[in-house]
Amino acid sequence: MPEQDAAPGGSGEVLPEVTLLGGVFSRGDVAAGDAAWLQALLDAEAGLARALERAGLAPAGAGAAVTRAAVAADLPAGDVAEVARASGLTGNPVPGLARVLARRVPDFAAPAVHRGATSQDIMDTAAMLLARRAAEVIRRDLMTAARAAARLAAAQRGTLMIGRTLLQQAVPVTFGVVAAGWLAGLDGAVTGLDAVADARLAVQFGGAAGTLASLGDAGPAVAALLADELRLAAPPLPWHTERLRVIDVAAAMARVTAALGKIARDVTLLSQTEVGEVAEGAADAGADGSPPGGAPRRGGSSAMPNKRNPVASVAILGCSRQVPGLLATLVASAEQELQRAAGAWHAEWQPFSDILRLAGSAAAWGADLLGGLTVDTAAMTANLAATGGLPLAERVTGLLAGALGRPAAHDLVAAAAGRAASAHVPLRDVLLALPEVGQAGITAGQVDAALDPAGYLGAAGAFVDAALRAHQEVENEHG
Amino acid sequence: MPEQDAAPGGSGEVLPEVTLLGGVFSRGDVAAGDAAWLQALLDAEAGLARALERAGLAPAGAGAAVTRAAVAADLPAGDVAEVARASGLTGNPVPGLARVLARRVPDFAAPAVHRGATSQDIMDTAAMLLARRAAEVIRRDLMTAARAAARLAAAQRGTLMIGRTLLQQAVPVTFGVVAAGWLAGLDGAVTGLDAVADARLAVQFGGAAGTLASLGDAGPAVAALLADELRLAAPPLPWHTERLRVIDVAAAMARVTAALGKIARDVTLLSQTEVGEVAEGAADAGADGSPPGGAPRRGGSSAMPNKRNPVASVAILGCSRQVPGLLATLVASAEQELQRAAGAWHAEWQPFSDILRLAGSAAAWGADLLGGLTVDTAAMTANLAATGGLPLAERVTGLLAGALGRPAAHDLVAAAAGRAASAHVPLRDVLLALPEVGQAGITAGQVDAALDPAGYLGAAGAFVDAALRAHQEVENEHG
Amino acid sequence: MPEQDAAPGGSGEVLPEVTLLGGVFSRGDVAAGDAAWLQALLDAEAGLARALERAGLAPAGAGAAVTRAAVAADLPAGDVAEVARASGLTGNPVPGLARVLARRVPDFAAPAVHRGATSQDIMDTAAMLLARRAAEVIRRDLMTAARAAARLAAAQRGTLMIGRTLLQQAVPVTFGVVAAGWLAGLDGAVTGLDAVADARLAVQFGGAAGTLASLGDAGPAVAALLADELRLAAPPLPWHTERLRVIDVAAAMARVTAALGKIARDVTLLSQTEVGEVAEGAADAGADGSPPGGAPRRGGSSAMPNKRNPVASVAILGCSRQVPGLLATLVASAEQELQRAAGAWHAEWQPFSDILRLAGSAAAWGADLLGGLTVDTAAMTANLAATGGLPLAERVTGLLAGALGRPAAHDLVAAAAGRAASAHVPLRDVLLALPEVGQAGITAGQVDAALDPAGYLGAAGAFVDAALRAHQEVENEHG
Amino acid sequence: MPEQDAAPGGSGEVLPEVTLLGGVFSRGDVAAGDAAWLQALLDAEAGLARALERAGLAPAGAGAAVTRAAVAADLPAGDVAEVARASGLTGNPVPGLARVLARRVPDFAAPAVHRGATSQDIMDTAAMLLARRAAEVIRRDLMTAARAAARLAAAQRGTLMIGRTLLQQAVPVTFGVVAAGWLAGLDGAVTGLDAVADARLAVQFGGAAGTLASLGDAGPAVAALLADELRLAAPPLPWHTERLRVIDVAAAMARVTAALGKIARDVTLLSQTEVGEVAEGAADAGADGSPPGGAPRRGGSSAMPNKRNPVASVAILGCSRQVPGLLATLVASAEQELQRAAGAWHAEWQPFSDILRLAGSAAAWGADLLGGLTVDTAAMTANLAATGGLPLAERVTGLLAGALGRPAAHDLVAAAAGRAASAHVPLRDVLLALPEVGQAGITAGQVDAALDPAGYLGAAGAFVDAALRAHQEVENEHG
Repeated sequence: MPEQDAAPGGSGEVLPEVTLLGGVFSRGDVAAGDAAWLQALLDAEAGLARALERAGLAPAGAGAAVTRAAVAADLPAGDVAEVARASGLTGNPVPGLARVLARRVPDFAAPAVHRGATSQDIMDTAAMLLARRAAEVIRRDLMTAARAAARLAAAQRGTLMIGRTLLQQAVPVTFGVVAAGWLAGLDGAVTGLDAVADARLAVQFGGAAGTLASLGDAGPAVAALLADELRLAAPPLPWHTERLRVIDVAAAMARVTAALGKIARDVTLLSQTEVGEVAEGAADAGADGSPPGGAPRRGGSSAMPNKRNPVASVAILGCSRQVPGLLATLVASAEQELQRAAGAWHAEWQPFSDILRLAGSAAAWGADLLGGLTVDTAAMTANLAATGGLPLAERVTGLLAGALGRPAAHDLVAAAAGRAASAHVPLRDVLLALPEVGQAGITAGQVDAALDPAGYLGAAGAFVDAALRAHQEVENEHG
Repeated sequence: MPEQDAAPGGSGEVLPEVTLLGGVFSRGDVAAGDAAWLQALLDAEAGLARALERAGLAPAGAGAAVTRAAVAADLPAGDVAEVARASGLTGNPVPGLARVLARRVPDFAAPAVHRGATSQDIMDTAAMLLARRAAEVIRRDLMTAARAAARLAAAQRGTLMIGRTLLQQAVPVTFGVVAAGWLAGLDGAVTGLDAVADARLAVQFGGAAGTLASLGDAGPAVAALLADELRLAAPPLPWHTERLRVIDVAAAMARVTAALGKIARDVTLLSQTEVGEVAEGAADAGADGSPPGGAPRRGGSSAMPNKRNPVASVAILGCSRQVPGLLATLVASAEQELQRAAGAWHAEWQPFSDILRLAGSAAAWGADLLGGLTVDTAAMTANLAATGGLPLAERVTGLLAGALGRPAAHDLVAAAAGRAASAHVPLRDVLLALPEVGQAGITAGQVDAALDPAGYLGAAGAFVDAALRAHQEVENEHG
Repeated sequence: MPEQDAAPGGSGEVLPEVTLLGGVFSRGDVAAGDAAWLQALLDAEAGLARALERAGLAPAGAGAAVTRAAVAADLPAGDVAEVARASGLTGNPVPGLARVLARRVPDFAAPAVHRGATSQDIMDTAAMLLARRAAEVIRRDLMTAARAAARLAAAQRGTLMIGRTLLQQAVPVTFGVVAAGWLAGLDGAVTGLDAVADARLAVQFGGAAGTLASLGDAGPAVAALLADELRLAAPPLPWHTERLRVIDVAAAMARVTAALGKIARDVTLLSQTEVGEVAEGAADAGADGSPPGGAPRRGGSSAMPNKRNPVASVAILGCSRQVPGLLATLVASAEQELQRAAGAWHAEWQPFSDILRLAGSAAAWGADLLGGLTVDTAAMTANLAATGGLPLAERVTGLLAGALGRPAAHDLVAAAAGRAASAHVPLRDVLLALPEVGQAGITAGQVDAALDPAGYLGAAGAFVDAALRAHQEVENEHG
Repeated sequence: MPEQDAAPGGSGEVLPEVTLLGGVFSRGDVAAGDAAWLQALLDAEAGLARALERAGLAPAGAGAAVTRAAVAADLPAGDVAEVARASGLTGNPVPGLARVLARRVPDFAAPAVHRGATSQDIMDTAAMLLARRAAEVIRRDLMTAARAAARLAAAQRGTLMIGRTLLQQAVPVTFGVVAAGWLAGLDGAVTGLDAVADARLAVQFGGAAGTLASLGDAGPAVAALLADELRLAAPPLPWHTERLRVIDVAAAMARVTAALGKIARDVTLLSQTEVGEVAEGAADAGADGSPPGGAPRRGGSSAMPNKRNPVASVAILGCSRQVPGLLATLVASAEQELQRAAGAWHAEWQPFSDILRLAGSAAAWGADLLGGLTVDTAAMTANLAATGGLPLAERVTGLLAGALGRPAAHDLVAAAAGRAASAHVPLRDVLLALPEVGQAGITAGQVDAALDPAGYLGAAGAFVDAALRAHQEVENEHG
């Protein structure tokens, strides 16, 4: 098995994370690969040793001794290789890891290692620790992104642009209300993430079959102390085969990438060459550092020097689109047999850490994207005007409906719009040439007013304000 | 079948729900097919007419007039066919439906039909109405199931059975703690469903591109009145392309089927011929009515008269396993472009109502399953005893560990267990023949005590009690 | 709507297919809902009776008698309701259906009904019949679409347009090569569909547990005759819990919607108001018939009379995006226990017929879309010219690379392109003002030649020709 | 970014593969993580340089020079880190890699690096190389597994056991026919894999937008030479946004894990403590090597010395259940925009290599599982006899049907079976006490014959033979 040769050496690079695609898919600070799992497993074992000591089930000092030994970066390569090899014998890495850990502590502390626990207790608790760390990082990046969206919504509250439905120009909107919609999604993602982090991340501790039998009567007390040590909730009873918590974490992450994916999709569309209303910012000199002389610049193309690709948006989409399938795997895995599942539990580990990593990368890209977004209001104005008033056809219909009735008005305007579009003349000219318009007593001034997009924004401003107020509540509660 | 009652009356079975597989996959009272969509769309249009009237934008009586006309059961078949045909021209059923509805109201009320709305407003609001109705039904069935699980947990609090991990016998548990785990899942499903129903089901009302432009300044007021009319929340701004609400409904339904699927899987395993610890109840005479003379009995096999199949469990699994893929579709669909998505929105409609229907069917089967479950405690006792004490090997190791150290004790007991298993003799006999046991000063009485499963239940009882207390809170808040 | 014709006659709308969204998601002639299942189940039972008669296991005339009775349209509503009710007792509709069918045949033929079969034999065989019928219809629509794509590729072989990568203008291509790419996808979909239809659609016949025990030695002979009767393959042994055939059908359908979804996505992008290079055709007067006076026109918007939505493309995407989740369900369902699965088999029925129906609808929309696509070559020319030569920057780099070396040429052109873009001046002017260009001995004529998109098409024409040749092979083999 | 520290050093372990879970999920020889991607990307670049040289577009020796430099193990850590960093700027690793590679070749050869190619050409071609290597390894392991299944089918052709449907005892089968069903699945997986490997793995080479413009007329010739160099097919035209090939690879892998998952599920069920008909073999001393003294033994439990877990089966299920979601992601990703997708392409990379890795691991475990499976025919006999003849009830019904008619016979036997089951007496005794049996002239001898399972196997033997013949054809064509 090549994996055995792959074992890391020395201290430090114990279990390197993904690198080749790391810049795209492991961006930000969510550590969720093998190295992160290893440390989280060790943290769970160390927390258990401390809990046992507090419960009087391990000698004084055992908790601290195990904690000192439970540092992934200090494990020799041979020990890690042993854990990996053992995972192929027992079906999970915990028995091997517990053995290695017990060997690395003083004799008096060894019996405190893994006492009362089963492998699943350690894996599940470690997963919750990974989720909590991921949630903290992601929440921070989402809030950065949300604040940038809030600034855009406020600054562009009155910036006119064309709204597009089914990718066709429809009626005017403002860029403010577009950004407000993005903001609402980000705020919703933060709120949901916090709800899960606060209420649903719980320690797992049930022993061989969920009764903590080997601890006699002391089980629940140790479980409570373990939860206290690891700052996780203490559930009423073990959740080894009741997996709603796993679904909740995954769904919260899917909400994160859903909110970001919508924004990224909008940016790729609005930054099309033919649209040009927004552009990803000059982030070359940002967090990634200035490119070395001649090195690829952000968004540059090796073949086409004219290109400026929306890299952040594309990377977000590259992340977000992997998430639905992973979520499905985790939901399907909730059908876990009796006291421990034969396969369904095992199928959770990789999608669980993948979904954390992808949500984390998407959030990091999202903070970058929204923080650096360039808005071209001139392009917005030009695109809005390009079709000569057609986006106001709905409003002109309203103007004529009073005199002609709505169906007749609709048909008349539809015909006029068709003629304007095919002849490439302004809708205004077609309308004013219609005898029905004059007969209805509609003046040119009324037509001009109806064709002014600034007067046809409805509640756009009010919606921006409402989104900003809602965001302020999120700031107050989750900021 | 309740579906037959759900079918609209009038000219007859205009839009009957699924029937061929209806007994399996459209069980219970969740109406979520075409007929249910049709009525929900009409309800949304009627609510809008009433809201417009209250806002002074439609004449007095218009709301009531539209509401009277908005009864699916009264629509002639030709009108429904017209709606279906028009949906192929416009890409959704709303324009055709609004047209049909406007035709069916008195002239004075016709302008109040669909005023200010876009098709998506009606579809999305109807979806929320469907979700609310489904949530009410499903919550009721889940609570019925949860109460049955609570009764089982309490009644079987001390019933010994073997715990099984990776489908292998492990250590003793109680059937009470098994049922408590089921209960925790059901309670979690109820809680999550209520949270979504209370906070996340919101009216959609944004007009052509989310600004309610055609209503001038009146948009937000109409939106609030519409929410009031339909008893849905009023969101800060339209969510036409911010789809976290759709994800939340779908995830809540996935939690429902996940909790039920775990129970169903356990029941299929525990009711295997070779295990026989539970059986699906004599529900023949239950809600389905006694079978007509000679008709197929519940769980019967046409070919094998000896068979008694766990039909409810199998049906639950048939439902629950369809859900992860549907959820993935809905999450992927959240990437919606600009002011209305070209495809992603359309891809939501069928999975959304499918997921409601499947969760509803699974919940109905679940209430039936748990309400009628037969428990064979004699079989539990026999299975626990069948391997001659091996499930207590862990405990014997603990007994010997004091004298021999844990590693040596583990190896000694593992060897003894192996010999007992291969020779089909009780572990007790093998152990008492070991010189190390006597040398360690362990008496036969101590060995017998260690091999008594009733003494090795750890916190099983405490966990049952905790689950029942937690359930009582759910009863108090959600019952 | 062809679905109405698919409805069984007799007492009337016994089992109508989907209607409300039928115009969108049940388009074309693939019948795959309850009515289609019912008839396919009856066809399987009838085929079995004929096979039994041919094998000498049923009296002469029994096959014909059962076949005469096995017409869904002739079943009274009460019989269908009985089948539905029984499906809730036995977990599938076959026992009830076999009972109803046996009652409807003369006494001498009744023992031939369902003899030797188990429910799964009938369901699985019916699924294969549904798949074959769907494949025939879909193949026909795909070929219609492919021929339209081939015509476009040939007709537009030299039509210049800008290529777009990551939604940014890149280098010139031709619309011919774009259409050739679509054609390749459609041809691939046809080829894959035919391969599955020819080789993988097999009869299922195994009896209670896959041994055909109740038929003694006659089982394999009856199986072969059944396959002959139904024109399905005869597998070496029953595949009741070996589900690769189900995966193969589903994957073939996913290939169909993948090929169509790519085309639909391109059309939505190319028909954006700001791009305008293609438009969905005037299909109002096509298969859907001319709209009745005042009725919604194809692609029209109720609110915005100016809109012309790409309805066919949107509908295709609405179909195609539901497919990955359904495919995942079917693949996950392949893990079927022992001699009949408890849930995994049941979870197949609805996704299986949904995936057929969605592929069928997408194919019907695709034939319509490509048959009516309008190409605006003037818009292509204008978009190509809009950025003043930037898409040829890659080629200019090649021109300068000889004199300056590629890295220096790349940097020089990148800077020039940046200046041209920000100053909105043609790249030509910026280039000719560069001293390095003159010093390298590059003439204005050379620059002009390099900036001529018609000269930078590489193998575009050759690729069109190759795609057309490959299509001709598909025509020859599958047309 | 922690990933930067993770960059590998020295020769050899350039980019270590997964280790912590490697023993479970990266078993066997499919290399599909970052290290494998890196080498495959380099192989694609090297193949291109050789093709360019053969086409006269690069100087003599350039191909060999680039090939010599294109060894992942020789890349300094700093170069790999540079590639990773650059992937965050350009959105994929190829521009950085091409730059590093060009720097590492002699000046004369540098212009041959990446000439004419775009990043996607290299990524897609590398993916095909990964797929081919994976397919070779997986095919070998599948054939090993299939041969073991064939041996089991032949050896146990007549071994009686009880068939189980919906996890309930049904009628007798043989273990031979069970193994034959497994064999059919494995053979189907091999056949499908070979079909894809032979016909669908094609080079990608299209340049910036699919026209190979920068190579003038030489593009197709270079593409053909590149295909020849890499032993991949040459497609008629680039498939950059026509992704059926990706789906085909993924579906072939899903078929592999589906076939294996079914077997693994059966083994977990048949090896339940209460069933005990098969057990995973003593593979401790097999490929994994004997466990070091005191180390965890295969299938051992840290807490429960009596446990022997079906580790191989569980690991297979842990792999197979991750696949449907990954497949769904890849199918959904086929909707790729215009000349290069913005996100959908990027979303393919990780699921593509994950699905190869998981299929590879499952196949390696599968070869191990079937090679070492222990069969307990005594347990099979005992389980078959345990219910006192009930599994033969179907046959007894057949015996009585002649005299009583099938419905009456069915009811009589069903009642007798019920009494036998509830009273725990043999069915024989109940039957012989029935007056109807005697009145029908049925003798005790006839009843005994009907209750002999060996006489009720139908075509079981014939099906084994047919599966073995079909396997022989696979051996001949694919062995």
